Amino acid sequence: MNNFTYYNPTQAVFGKGQLSELNKLVPAKANILITYGGGSVKRLGTLDRVKEELATSERKLFEFGGIEANPQFETAMKAVDIVRSEGIDFLLAVGGGSVMDATKFIALAGASDAHIGKERELMFHGFAPVPVERAIPMGTVVTLPATGSEMNGFSVISDGHEKLPIFSPLTFPVFSILDPELTYTLPERQVANGVVDTFVHVLEQYITYPVDARFQDRVAEGILQTLIEVGPETLANPEDYNARANLFWCATMALSGVVGSGVPQDWTTHMIGHEITALFGLDHARTLAIVQSPLWKIRKEKKQAKLAQYAERVWGIHEGSESEKADQAIAKTEAFFRSLGMKTTLSENDISKEDIPKVIHALEKHGMTQLSESGDFTLEHAQEVLELAV
Amino acid sequence: MNNFTYYNPTQAVFGKGQLSELNKLVPAKANILITYGGGSVKRLGTLDRVKEELATSERKLFEFGGIEANPQFETAMKAVDIVRSEGIDFLLAVGGGSVMDATKFIALAGASDAHIGKERELMFHGFAPVPVERAIPMGTVVTLPATGSEMNGFSVISDGHEKLPIFSPLTFPVFSILDPELTYTLPERQVANGVVDTFVHVLEQYITYPVDARFQDRVAEGILQTLIEVGPETLANPEDYNARANLFWCATMALSGVVGSGVPQDWTTHMIGHEITALFGLDHARTLAIVQSPLWKIRKEKKQAKLAQYAERVWGIHEGSESEKADQAIAKTEAFFRSLGMKTTLSENDISKEDIPKVIHALEKHGMTQLSESGDFTLEHAQEVLELAV
Repeated sequence: MNNFTYYNPTQAVFGKGQLSELNKLVPAKANILITYGGGSVKRLGTLDRVKEELATSERKLFEFGGIEANPQFETAMKAVDIVRSEGIDFLLAVGGGSVMDATKFIALAGASDAHIGKERELMFHGFAPVPVERAIPMGTVVTLPATGSEMNGFSVISDGHEKLPIFSPLTFPVFSILDPELTYTLPERQVANGVVDTFVHVLEQYITYPVDARFQDRVAEGILQTLIEVGPETLANPEDYNARANLFWCATMALSGVVGSGVPQDWTTHMIGHEITALFGLDHARTLAIVQSPLWKIRKEKKQAKLAQYAERVWGIHEGSESEKADQAIAKTEAFFRSLGMKTTLSENDISKEDIPKVIHALEKHGMTQLSESGDFTLEHAQEVLELAV
Repeated sequence: MNNFTYYNPTQAVFGKGQLSELNKLVPAKANILITYGGGSVKRLGTLDRVKEELATSERKLFEFGGIEANPQFETAMKAVDIVRSEGIDFLLAVGGGSVMDATKFIALAGASDAHIGKERELMFHGFAPVPVERAIPMGTVVTLPATGSEMNGFSVISDGHEKLPIFSPLTFPVFSILDPELTYTLPERQVANGVVDTFVHVLEQYITYPVDARFQDRVAEGILQTLIEVGPETLANPEDYNARANLFWCATMALSGVVGSGVPQDWTTHMIGHEITALFGLDHARTLAIVQSPLWKIRKEKKQAKLAQYAERVWGIHEGSESEKADQAIAKTEAFFRSLGMKTTLSENDISKEDIPKVIHALEKHGMTQLSESGDFTLEHAQEVLELAV
């Protein structure tokens, strides 16, 4: 097992009706900015319920809606203006990963006048902590189980066609309200995306090289097994509480640090996927479903031991050599994604072989030339993966 | 899945050589009280290394040693006197569960003059939060993987022959340094105790009635499987880093909230075990190894579904009816404890049938008359369990 620091101070408030805890969780006598997305939280009444809960104390409420999928720097900056002009003390994100991620950026950029005019600089630190002293405290009311952003300090912000990861331990939400019932009305496509996104979050922390981290491996396998069960269940019966609750808690736990502490982590699939989303607008999860299998095929030798373990423990494949088990696990994974409605090739998603150089160029531009858990995944490997994905 | 709040703000700093992080983690310019136990941390040099690390900044260091196994209220009160007289700002527990638990009590009792003369009152709130406003912040350097006290707000304090649970969210350690190498010199008996203690911590949160909490169940099963593997490994080869590291992280995670959030919890085995320790001085883990199997036999009907799941997923038992699988799981568990050197009957531990009324009386005195996940485990049940344990 590798050395590690595990730290996750977010209070997760999980279950039916937990929105009623909001008044206790949000500071009283504060100026609150509620952030949200494209309007579904308005249409479905979630925003009104949030405001009702908060109105029971002397708070001044402000709203900022219209945060888009793959939230843009320019959009977040409009909210930063409100933070500055209204003296906002607390941010409350109501939505999914995009709203939470944008709010994390707002929390960092809006916390100090020292960032005025230099906000873009906050975006170029990769996975290293952003060098800032403070962030505005934030909470979340999560309406989409997928990104796990509700229980970590990571976010992803887009700047035009650039999609960039940002990390700060200051942007762990103080609390996250996770009520599975608030997610019943999600479109099928978004639920399927959430299952795949969570699945690949775990794979990035699990299918690497073995370091004998048995707790972490088994937690990873437990989440994967659960997703294989509840993914189809919750798509077929969106109002089956337990199926949705199990998906939700798996999504939150997948990126909470419990799986990834003390083990090597890959994230190549995500980095390639981010470029595809930024260039062609394809949903994040769908890019992951395209990249994952070809990546494993190209990197099979390095990942074979863990792929075979995954084959055995998650898919129940006990026959064949280590290599054959790995092959079967790759096939099973792709079939699982397809069963959830993913189109797992570039061409099925209207991206052609001729588009590959754009992705390679973007990876190069963003310094993604030494990816993977061992830092030896080059642009040549990315080229091979994408050719295999056509 | 039940509704729940999951919250664990402790920073776990895990791995080889992590003691060198101490200077960064402990406040500078503070009065620090270092607490420890019977002298092994002195003899083995751990205490000196701790003091060396802390001496690099302007801290005033105080020491309080001699905290016994099953730490006594009167012992902890001597440290509370030092806290008051020296204006201690931060407590650093160096040791195992007893030292950490005593330090949590010191952190609560010493935090405010309002408690002077009323410190004993802090001990009688069971699992409900102690009604206090603040606690002195504390960190830990853990030398024994067992109780999980390093990553939760629970402690157990003895007052003469009474052994009482105490909980406060204010006593989560700010940080816990978990270096497996610091535990290499532990006596075999203590390592075996740690394996059993961790195992039963998980069982108390897992062998209850099913609520379809799939992540939590699989984390529980993952820890149990790992303990079955690494228990014998780490006893046979105390300096096998990975075996000890896997035991250690499982011990910490077992009581961190990850297993027990959203599921019913039992704790009957612990409550009966505490009385046996308080009355007869037997090691905590050894009392658990005595009580667990008879308790399951008496409560088999209520626990059969989860016992059968445990049989299948942890012990690989796939033949037979649900009832037969449950029986086999009970037998396997007891055999596992015996393989670690536990004597699993009362009589093997010099406690006779004639001693049973003392235990029943103690349970009654402490209000332990409606135990278990469903609150229907009475003194009559406890009597049956203990008779079966003779």
